[in-house]
Amino acid sequence: MIAGVIGATGYAGAELVRLLAAHPKVTELALASVSFEGARIEDVYPNFMGKVTARLVKPEEAAAQADAVFAALPAGAGEAYAEACVGRGAPFIDLSADFRFGTDEALYQAWYGKGWAKPALREAAVYGLPELNRARIWEQAAAGRVIIGNPGCYPTGASLGAFPALARGLVDEGARVIVDSASGVTGGGREPARAFHYPECADSLAPYKVGCHRHSPEIARNFAAMAGRPVQVTFTPHLAPMNRGILSTIYLPLKREWQARPAGSACLPPGPEAAARAEAIHHLYKEFYAKEPFVRVLPAGVPAATGRVRMSNFCDISVTLDQSGTILIAASAIDNMVKGAAGQAVQNLNVIMGWDETSGLEAVPALF
Amino acid sequence: MIAGVIGATGYAGAELVRLLAAHPKVTELALASVSFEGARIEDVYPNFMGKVTARLVKPEEAAAQADAVFAALPAGAGEAYAEACVGRGAPFIDLSADFRFGTDEALYQAWYGKGWAKPALREAAVYGLPELNRARIWEQAAAGRVIIGNPGCYPTGASLGAFPALARGLVDEGARVIVDSASGVTGGGREPARAFHYPECADSLAPYKVGCHRHSPEIARNFAAMAGRPVQVTFTPHLAPMNRGILSTIYLPLKREWQARPAGSACLPPGPEAAARAEAIHHLYKEFYAKEPFVRVLPAGVPAATGRVRMSNFCDISVTLDQSGTILIAASAIDNMVKGAAGQAVQNLNVIMGWDETSGLEAVPALF
Amino acid sequence: MIAGVIGATGYAGAELVRLLAAHPKVTELALASVSFEGARIEDVYPNFMGKVTARLVKPEEAAAQADAVFAALPAGAGEAYAEACVGRGAPFIDLSADFRFGTDEALYQAWYGKGWAKPALREAAVYGLPELNRARIWEQAAAGRVIIGNPGCYPTGASLGAFPALARGLVDEGARVIVDSASGVTGGGREPARAFHYPECADSLAPYKVGCHRHSPEIARNFAAMAGRPVQVTFTPHLAPMNRGILSTIYLPLKREWQARPAGSACLPPGPEAAARAEAIHHLYKEFYAKEPFVRVLPAGVPAATGRVRMSNFCDISVTLDQSGTILIAASAIDNMVKGAAGQAVQNLNVIMGWDETSGLEAVPALF
Amino acid sequence: MIAGVIGATGYAGAELVRLLAAHPKVTELALASVSFEGARIEDVYPNFMGKVTARLVKPEEAAAQADAVFAALPAGAGEAYAEACVGRGAPFIDLSADFRFGTDEALYQAWYGKGWAKPALREAAVYGLPELNRARIWEQAAAGRVIIGNPGCYPTGASLGAFPALARGLVDEGARVIVDSASGVTGGGREPARAFHYPECADSLAPYKVGCHRHSPEIARNFAAMAGRPVQVTFTPHLAPMNRGILSTIYLPLKREWQARPAGSACLPPGPEAAARAEAIHHLYKEFYAKEPFVRVLPAGVPAATGRVRMSNFCDISVTLDQSGTILIAASAIDNMVKGAAGQAVQNLNVIMGWDETSGLEAVPALF
Repeated sequence: MIAGVIGATGYAGAELVRLLAAHPKVTELALASVSFEGARIEDVYPNFMGKVTARLVKPEEAAAQADAVFAALPAGAGEAYAEACVGRGAPFIDLSADFRFGTDEALYQAWYGKGWAKPALREAAVYGLPELNRARIWEQAAAGRVIIGNPGCYPTGASLGAFPALARGLVDEGARVIVDSASGVTGGGREPARAFHYPECADSLAPYKVGCHRHSPEIARNFAAMAGRPVQVTFTPHLAPMNRGILSTIYLPLKREWQARPAGSACLPPGPEAAARAEAIHHLYKEFYAKEPFVRVLPAGVPAATGRVRMSNFCDISVTLDQSGTILIAASAIDNMVKGAAGQAVQNLNVIMGWDETSGLEAVPALF
Repeated sequence: MIAGVIGATGYAGAELVRLLAAHPKVTELALASVSFEGARIEDVYPNFMGKVTARLVKPEEAAAQADAVFAALPAGAGEAYAEACVGRGAPFIDLSADFRFGTDEALYQAWYGKGWAKPALREAAVYGLPELNRARIWEQAAAGRVIIGNPGCYPTGASLGAFPALARGLVDEGARVIVDSASGVTGGGREPARAFHYPECADSLAPYKVGCHRHSPEIARNFAAMAGRPVQVTFTPHLAPMNRGILSTIYLPLKREWQARPAGSACLPPGPEAAARAEAIHHLYKEFYAKEPFVRVLPAGVPAATGRVRMSNFCDISVTLDQSGTILIAASAIDNMVKGAAGQAVQNLNVIMGWDETSGLEAVPALF
Repeated sequence: MIAGVIGATGYAGAELVRLLAAHPKVTELALASVSFEGARIEDVYPNFMGKVTARLVKPEEAAAQADAVFAALPAGAGEAYAEACVGRGAPFIDLSADFRFGTDEALYQAWYGKGWAKPALREAAVYGLPELNRARIWEQAAAGRVIIGNPGCYPTGASLGAFPALARGLVDEGARVIVDSASGVTGGGREPARAFHYPECADSLAPYKVGCHRHSPEIARNFAAMAGRPVQVTFTPHLAPMNRGILSTIYLPLKREWQARPAGSACLPPGPEAAARAEAIHHLYKEFYAKEPFVRVLPAGVPAATGRVRMSNFCDISVTLDQSGTILIAASAIDNMVKGAAGQAVQNLNVIMGWDETSGLEAVPALF
Repeated sequence: MIAGVIGATGYAGAELVRLLAAHPKVTELALASVSFEGARIEDVYPNFMGKVTARLVKPEEAAAQADAVFAALPAGAGEAYAEACVGRGAPFIDLSADFRFGTDEALYQAWYGKGWAKPALREAAVYGLPELNRARIWEQAAAGRVIIGNPGCYPTGASLGAFPALARGLVDEGARVIVDSASGVTGGGREPARAFHYPECADSLAPYKVGCHRHSPEIARNFAAMAGRPVQVTFTPHLAPMNRGILSTIYLPLKREWQARPAGSACLPPGPEAAARAEAIHHLYKEFYAKEPFVRVLPAGVPAATGRVRMSNFCDISVTLDQSGTILIAASAIDNMVKGAAGQAVQNLNVIMGWDETSGLEAVPALF
């Protein structure tokens, strides 16, 4: 199959190229870039030298030729290519936010500051978090018209970390869930900017876009979809001095029957009751994800660490109770460029095509 | 004055040495180390070469000779030296947790696994967070018998970030406050260990001691002291791939009258009401800390970043509302080795001696 | 085929496991560890969770069962296993220095401080730098008795960077070649130590073992083998604040006929003559490595960078003349854990077995 | 005294501000910036908040008001301000290359691509490496007309590392000296660019501007000045993944009488003769710098490391013989922003004013 990538020279695009170049079912790449049209991708990304030598074409060409098309473009820029692909039955996997909100154009507009040029395309759109929507992706693929709204990086980690607790009814319905996340700097993309200038982000940690990051509604929507009820979410992103990875620490207030100790007691170390509850919840998480190829619920005592999923499509999850026994603290780690972007997009392609879901995503992560 | 440092070759001790060597009122250092007794500190720390050439003495000698004594020792190891100092009227500033809990030996025992050899020493002990206890430190110093329980690194950042909101009654009394913190690796001390081995912590972020970190009760106690009521706290520490710094992101649920929007509404971007509330809270924070020499409430839109307080005694604080308008998100950044340990200890010395509180702590932080 | 790894829980061993687990011709792993015998490797390396689940066996078992055996052990510790493997015709690939020096036990002894228990094994030994010795590896494999002395990390990068110039007679025979290299911290292995403690190596660069690093004679021997004459070498290693990678900057004084400008002239920027010479030398390098699957001679103006070969078996090389036109400066970049250790070992297995030399080593490097 | 800084918002300028704000003899700052005129420097650099609150003025104003003026400007941009200052007798300390080359405009032009607008200013110019030119700075200051050509960052480290060997005649006169240096990313300045974009330089090491870096002639000139004869130099800079610091590894071929072993022998570990020679050279270095306040010749066995001079004006030097005993390997470490730029500029001010040379530069470096 010919896989097309539009926006191949941005970071998410380049990561798609890296993964697709090694995908056993992909025989050819059609790579498109507006900025570097005509150049070879190995001239823009010397790391590809000798491995990916394709010449960059116009976006329309990639959209017309490829058997499946990925787009890694700014908000709003991919709709025309989506239409072209859907029109001829080619799957279109979009890494922007354009197709993540179903038909809720108002919500999109509220956060992205503009509406959709072609709202009707949303009929074909599925939010591409396979752990949530695998069946719907299959259905839509079977219908021969499929656009994937590939999830945002933060929503991927946050959702996978919280899903079992939400699905199994552990979480107090009146309470707010707090998602505290930190991302590596590749999340900022390829364009040089002060915020991503080495001397200003090395050896430093800081929050950003507090209270107003666009991934907030996507997280809230996913939580609600899994819980089957609205879920109040507070989300804070941080920039961490590392290249890849998102760690999300998720605070899920437990229903009274899941709590290990009555709220209001003194601040003491966790006792045996907390250990028992934690074990039950750990078991529940293990079971929930037992068949998922890319979610690993870590053994008790091993915290999720971004370094251990680097360059892989895994999402590692650790679960613990807080000291009071009333809050479940789930931590999830992903590689923001893989499971948080390009890897998940390839996973979606695999789901659509009916291939083994791990095709091209078999990388064994290193510890270092 | 002769300043003594017992445990001078650990990281907190070495940081004390660095600061005291440049302190305008300190004329001589008496440095003690069990491990390196007899060596020169510049042989253990070549960075000190030519600047600090003192030979390391026995702890008892430092405790006997110095006009003021700092101890950076494991839990329980400093009580004898504290007694010796108090007995002869020399201030004793202890960087361990031994003197942080007033007379509450049970709480100490619950978290540190052992009791006190000399409980009576606690009469002379003050918890040395000047922004909370300056007056009590003065009093105790005036009494000629003062032991400082120098605060833990995480409690320092967490407390300063939350204090104005707690003191001014912004926080919903029934709600739990969540403190999500990340520390640089110097927080782990000087002993090599797998967790702090470069290849295993570089380029990675992970939580640790979730639900059971010993700084939890200290944070809860400080919050309660400032709020004048018990405060439920959930605290999660993380290890970040940087040398120095602690960033604490603190989630403070607001009382209804301080909220910008009724809880329960859809996940929308913050509106003008939120901006107005945020401004009022920002103003309140500025005022609260107006006279504090080491707390900087940052302008709106500038998030606290550990890199901007590196090597200084500053605590930078940024305040924002979450997207829902119901949670105050305060972020505080400190250098864990300075305001989080040695710098605060020197600040305590300055308070005790009636010197300018910034003596020896005038370092202007760099951006890079 | 069953691949055995003795010393599977050290860093080089774990990297072998990572690569062999994904090798298309390897169907089973026999992993051995003295320290963790009986444990599962995924308990020691949580990054392997769900991907490599083998239980660690005794070294003798791995040496007896596997069709090919890799050893990542301290100097001298692998000879017995080598003997066992050679005895039964199984290839033995040794990552220590034990089999790198042909029959020159005196040289080995001079640098490693001890002799060989079983010198006769060296009959079967080949130094496993395929770009130098591919034919000899084939021969020895054909003879059914093959021990590979897998090259050191620094000698690999240094040799590949200098080989074309040495082979083609560009280098002044009376002159000394200087190799200035810097390695990431994984080169120090898994054992925590002060030198590799995060706070002491982060954000710092320093030389180590100046004038006495054990890789010196290996580099000199390789240079001589390629040049067909003795070559004087000065080698200095450095520790750089990064996880993976070795950059070697190699100063090769040119014969007069290759120089761009007579030695002794003023310090001026390079002129057109230098550019012409550099281009000729660049061409010569390209040609020399035209058929090598893992050596990439970079386009003029693109300097070798360790980040662009990370996690791959590539060696990237850039060549430039110095300002005077009399010194060829070749820079080579490898991933010290892959081409510098485990990847090259797998490459050697591929050569021995007659498989495609890139089997299991197809990883496309990322830029970030 | 009022100290002026023109170009205060670049990195070198901001570092000057940081140091001058804490200088005991500087009572007021006149800070100028074309880009941010009218703003407060603490708005551009939030790290300065509350410590440096001056409003940024026009360059002409700073040049007219200050008692001494520093300029951190692009090549050629400072001549007019220099003229203004010299005209009224105020010292002018220029951090660009404009005043580093005495009257050799041709050499400047060859490397910087343009000539000088006001060549006559060079009468008043001294190259401001105090360890080389202290007496000349005094003389010129006494004459009441002084312009300092503040040294480049690489030339500072390279020169200090090589000076004793060159001055005392250790170095073979026919041989070329190789300087292999690596700099932290702050050396690239404040402007965001791909080369300094965090994801593209983190965890990677690479050379740049090989054979054509503008600091080459400055290094060669300094070497010649100290040796009293022309010295051939080959210089290669690298970019290292750290914020601050330059490590220079300098290869100085020894005259036969200083060599520890005849050239041409086999590659063996260094013997006792090498140790004896190394000790003699170490002694010679110690003596050479005995009175220098900022140069530390490290004890044998302690290699120069950039981390140990971070934020200080020190230059640390370690000396060793190579394995052959024929090359002296001197390694020097500086903080590129301090001794390599702003700190040295302040040192020059101190020399000019006859103040203690360490005024404002007393910072004790930390290890971490």
